[in-house]
Amino acid sequence: MSILEKITTPSDLEHLNSAETLQLAAELRECIISTVGRCGGHLAPNLGTVELTIALLRSFDLPHERIIWDVGHQCYSYKLLTGRQKDFARLRQFNGCCGFPVRGESAFDCYSAGHAGVAISAALGMCAAQKAGDHHKVIAVVGDGAIGSGVALEGLNQVRDHGRNLVIVLNDNKMAISENVGAISRALNRMMTSIRYRWIKNCAKALLGLLPRSRKLTHYVSRLEDAAKSLLLPGGIFGELGIRYLGPINGHDMAALERTFNSVKNDDRPVIIHVVTEKGRGYAPAEAAPEHFHGVGAFNTSTGTALKPSVPGFSSAFGQAACELAAAVPELHAVVAAMTGGVGLSKFAELYPERFFDAGMAESHAVSFSSGLAAAGKPVICAIYATFMQRSLDNIFHDVCLMKLPVVFALDRAGLVEDGPTHHGIYDLGFLLAMPNLTILQPGCEAEVKPMLEFALQQNAPVVIRYPRGNSDAAQRSNMPAVSPISMGRSAVWRNGSDLAIYAAGAEAVRALAIADELQKNHALSCKVVNVRFLKPFDENALLSDAGSMPIFTLEDHVAATGLGSVAAQILSQSNLPNHVDFTALGLPDNGTVGFGSVDKLRSAWELDTAALTLRIARKLQH
Amino acid sequence: MSILEKITTPSDLEHLNSAETLQLAAELRECIISTVGRCGGHLAPNLGTVELTIALLRSFDLPHERIIWDVGHQCYSYKLLTGRQKDFARLRQFNGCCGFPVRGESAFDCYSAGHAGVAISAALGMCAAQKAGDHHKVIAVVGDGAIGSGVALEGLNQVRDHGRNLVIVLNDNKMAISENVGAISRALNRMMTSIRYRWIKNCAKALLGLLPRSRKLTHYVSRLEDAAKSLLLPGGIFGELGIRYLGPINGHDMAALERTFNSVKNDDRPVIIHVVTEKGRGYAPAEAAPEHFHGVGAFNTSTGTALKPSVPGFSSAFGQAACELAAAVPELHAVVAAMTGGVGLSKFAELYPERFFDAGMAESHAVSFSSGLAAAGKPVICAIYATFMQRSLDNIFHDVCLMKLPVVFALDRAGLVEDGPTHHGIYDLGFLLAMPNLTILQPGCEAEVKPMLEFALQQNAPVVIRYPRGNSDAAQRSNMPAVSPISMGRSAVWRNGSDLAIYAAGAEAVRALAIADELQKNHALSCKVVNVRFLKPFDENALLSDAGSMPIFTLEDHVAATGLGSVAAQILSQSNLPNHVDFTALGLPDNGTVGFGSVDKLRSAWELDTAALTLRIARKLQH
Repeated sequence: MSILEKITTPSDLEHLNSAETLQLAAELRECIISTVGRCGGHLAPNLGTVELTIALLRSFDLPHERIIWDVGHQCYSYKLLTGRQKDFARLRQFNGCCGFPVRGESAFDCYSAGHAGVAISAALGMCAAQKAGDHHKVIAVVGDGAIGSGVALEGLNQVRDHGRNLVIVLNDNKMAISENVGAISRALNRMMTSIRYRWIKNCAKALLGLLPRSRKLTHYVSRLEDAAKSLLLPGGIFGELGIRYLGPINGHDMAALERTFNSVKNDDRPVIIHVVTEKGRGYAPAEAAPEHFHGVGAFNTSTGTALKPSVPGFSSAFGQAACELAAAVPELHAVVAAMTGGVGLSKFAELYPERFFDAGMAESHAVSFSSGLAAAGKPVICAIYATFMQRSLDNIFHDVCLMKLPVVFALDRAGLVEDGPTHHGIYDLGFLLAMPNLTILQPGCEAEVKPMLEFALQQNAPVVIRYPRGNSDAAQRSNMPAVSPISMGRSAVWRNGSDLAIYAAGAEAVRALAIADELQKNHALSCKVVNVRFLKPFDENALLSDAGSMPIFTLEDHVAATGLGSVAAQILSQSNLPNHVDFTALGLPDNGTVGFGSVDKLRSAWELDTAALTLRIARKLQH
Repeated sequence: MSILEKITTPSDLEHLNSAETLQLAAELRECIISTVGRCGGHLAPNLGTVELTIALLRSFDLPHERIIWDVGHQCYSYKLLTGRQKDFARLRQFNGCCGFPVRGESAFDCYSAGHAGVAISAALGMCAAQKAGDHHKVIAVVGDGAIGSGVALEGLNQVRDHGRNLVIVLNDNKMAISENVGAISRALNRMMTSIRYRWIKNCAKALLGLLPRSRKLTHYVSRLEDAAKSLLLPGGIFGELGIRYLGPINGHDMAALERTFNSVKNDDRPVIIHVVTEKGRGYAPAEAAPEHFHGVGAFNTSTGTALKPSVPGFSSAFGQAACELAAAVPELHAVVAAMTGGVGLSKFAELYPERFFDAGMAESHAVSFSSGLAAAGKPVICAIYATFMQRSLDNIFHDVCLMKLPVVFALDRAGLVEDGPTHHGIYDLGFLLAMPNLTILQPGCEAEVKPMLEFALQQNAPVVIRYPRGNSDAAQRSNMPAVSPISMGRSAVWRNGSDLAIYAAGAEAVRALAIADELQKNHALSCKVVNVRFLKPFDENALLSDAGSMPIFTLEDHVAATGLGSVAAQILSQSNLPNHVDFTALGLPDNGTVGFGSVDKLRSAWELDTAALTLRIARKLQH
């Protein structure tokens, strides 16, 4: 039996000796690598936090003391050490173990997380809820990328006021998703390279050289080193914010970590412990390419190569289009928020470094910065995942739409994703549809991305282009008509039919073609398929003309109540049509949480796969 | 002719001598006080920036150099000195002069603003748009309250990367709207009270005492003092962020301000200039009560007393209910974001200081902090203006709704407000309606606020309660039935009728009673009035039952396309009703910007006043 298998709860860690903790770390890494190799997931960040997790669990008294994992994509060791080894085998699988901390999955998960930067605020709230005299620590583990996000900085600004029992563990791996940006990141580097810090390090090293080799003496020298650091390193920006600073500490040295954690347990001041870890630690392919291995699909663990070759999809169509347009439009700028590769703009960044800006995990800033570029006369593309764009809705409104500035927003990952509830891009439209001066587009397939981007840049006004992760159904490509020119507010008829019409948004239009085939084959129904292209302004005339003669269905990869379904419902319900239109909005629910797992599984669970949709439509018509 | 009247463009300021600038400052104050006394507006912040504005306009070359006024509520002197004296007489009046900077109103307004903290990001974008070798400065004027907001901090973190020509003027008046909070605010105070700073000040004073009185010598001593500050004051938190720090500088000393501004003009590094001003300066009532005079209605300028007595409305009903419930529920906490008085919680803060938290202008943090309190088992009310809550929609989703935590959001100012496009609370529902686990309530009148708050706290789940600024129509009070118990998802019939039904959200239900009277009187139509109470879950059965027998209208103080109108449209369009329902959604547009001015004027402009609505409804029925 491995050591890992013997750990069913954190208290089992207490009696391990240092050799055993080292072996446990190795076993955790092995388990994480093999599981992620099989199920996909966040590899590099989790390999970086193995020792940190062991040390935290050995030092603090869980669940009476609480750990909030900011972003949450570094919690695999934590799950494995808090009674979830069996579940972990079904990591990120439908009804299996979530890849993020989830309240309800375990008493040890005190807070669900998926978006960066909120842990400090939440931990402060937990501290504020404590009774006077309560000394239980609340620990927020925050990455050096996330700490530059607005909400984390807002939280830091308040730590001194409410954080008596707050311990911030700053997990510094010098990366956001891409390489990190910004002054705080540089300040952290300065701490590690400061003359005083190196002097202390060198003194300790020299002292050890002079002394006879002994575990006890090594221990004392380390403590002396800690004390010197604490006295002589000023804490920089954290000191200025009134937060005691400890570190930097080697995040793979469990003894040093535990020593530091134990030293703050009886302290009544908020503290930030600067821990330096290596993303991808202990797995050569991930150490060599930590951005690639940040989040991956299943891969061959001995080589690191993906099991399924990645198929170029919407993101790469967008990236290529952006590069081509940048060549033609010398003023075109692009702004991303820590996801250069994810949104497909690596090539753009390489070709046009002077016109490319990575704002870091700072989506509000990214949008207002884009707005500044546009206000100064530059056309701008701002590419962010739909779920993270939720952080900048107010900036889209206040800084772009109200001023009618020409910023084109590329909303990647708009629709369902494997990562689950925190990451689905299915909520944005409700807010965006109300925005003045805004045009909202969804390409039906990859081939529409470039013409839509060109169209958007011609508008001299704000435009949103939404598209999902991955690619449209290749099996349907031969079914699709050639791309017709994009014209303001006009939909594209993809197939004619007379028994019903499906108005579909984005890649769902490709699915609608498959549904139309099934309806014809199995139910002898002739189904019209319309790629709506424009959510706003909507092609009202097309819809009303079809509604006079056949039942209407809308289909979308968004909450129907605040998406395409709501747009069509308003047109139909306020029309002058003589008869009641048979209308059904097909899309995601507004009254339940859409879980995690493969997108196909999630679709099936909500009866949104092709087979289930075909059946739902056929039944509705037979009714 | 006054000096002010002679200034038609900033270049007219160049040749004024120091006596004339002093007189100009006095004239600006007089004009601002008398205009705000007549029109209402932001008084205290504008009295604080008179000298600062004169000095900025004399030092920088506008409009080639750009000034972004963060939040924008301190721009009155700027408007008066950039060719808008005539318009200013109609400050905040419909079709008059906006109380905020607006692109398009003048070539000198390079950026529209109303929400706090975005100026740094926008200015960085403008800097990034500059060609190499361009030395024009971009100036962001940011308050010490706003600089603690997430987007401002995200921007500060990036200043060193893109801000070669950036000048941040930190306008420090030690106030957000209420008194300021947080570590940055304390750090700013430290700078002003540091031993070195006081030592430099005292040296300069002593030196002046030793020297003969002479304008020239005074000038040289001041320059020496500047140099000493620049050398010996380390820049604290800004230094850590790689931004050169200058100050603190007396923000009412125009010579000192101009000297400092001129000194940075040829510098190729980003700089932050810490300017200390007094909110309300030069008007005794505002100096004594700067929070009250932050934004005011018309008042008697000789006494400072309001012309119209303030009528207790929704905010005070909420504040009183919160206090009463806090007495009954000893664990109840309340969180605000810099608007303690505005949201009606001053009394709560006074009575229960240990359960009251002001997060400052940090709405994201406020929500995630509330979430932390709730995750630790405390019931929480989080009260924020609807327009500012747009900054924390992602936190409402990620930190509250997904975890189904019991936070009650009180969305004050939900609906139209005088301040205009940046401040209307008319966009939130589109996003909120899609949220899982969320209940959304709107009280029809002040008397429903307390029972709804009680109901919300019983749910042990997230709840939003939205209500407008001000009060419901007192003339209709006698028309209203007694408040019936609040029951999940159930509307309240306020009046029966047989020719049509108005389903109205919130205080619009009171207006609907007036409309019903008019319809009866002038058009002999019998109008049913339903106070919907619940936007989510919606009372579908009530609506469907009426829809079978009469035309349906919805009425709301929100964009109809993403609010109540969209909810009703979906129910009606997807029903099994045999006939087409005659349905009309009455509310705000999604395709235009709703301007500024009295709410009555705005309503009239969009045909949403009682008379226009009556006519629209009657015409629709006669059609």
